Amino acid sequence: MNDYQFKLVRIKGEFVWHNHKDTDEAFIVLAGGMDIEFRDGVAHLEGDELFVVPRGIEHRPRSSAPAQLLVIEPRVVANTGESGGELTSPGDVWI
Amino acid sequence: MNDYQFKLVRIKGEFVWHNHKDTDEAFIVLAGGMDIEFRDGVAHLEGDELFVVPRGIEHRPRSSAPAQLLVIEPRVVANTGESGGELTSPGDVWI
Repeated sequence: MNDYQFKLVRIKGEFVWHNHKDTDEAFIVLAGGMDIEFRDGVAHLEGDELFVVPRGIEHRPRSSAPAQLLVIEPRVVANTGESGGELTSPGDVWI
Repeated sequence: MNDYQFKLVRIKGEFVWHNHKDTDEAFIVLAGGMDIEFRDGVAHLEGDELFVVPRGIEHRPRSSAPAQLLVIEPRVVANTGESGGELTSPGDVWI
């Protein structure tokens, strides 16, 4: 949509701490549940819940059981934000 | 999210034909089903389905039974696009 992408994501376990300094990031939980950890707290999301992480805020998605998400963010955004590392995914993968 | 809004929408019946000349528009069906009519066809959407209407394309959302939607588009967009009329909603209503 315009310069944004809808990214279908499966998660289990802990992602890396990261932030996106230039953009907010929206999470919609499609199945299962997840936590988004912040340095000062945690948000728990279940199916159909929406959460927007503001730009620049360090966060770490995690899920103890498999969960399915829709992540909405600008096309150029790397999933690991400023952090990089082995969990960085290639962009522009269409399914 | 950034300069975009997530708009919770309840529909029943036919909306007006309209287009948004400067932006795409994303529909996610939360409950029920809907059609998006185009001048040359129709898209039928059920729960959890996503459809992006490209900018400039005339369309008319409709639903024979009540349905609940999440519409994602830039903050400044009017629901009736270029058409106006009595179905135009005020923007920036937060719930």
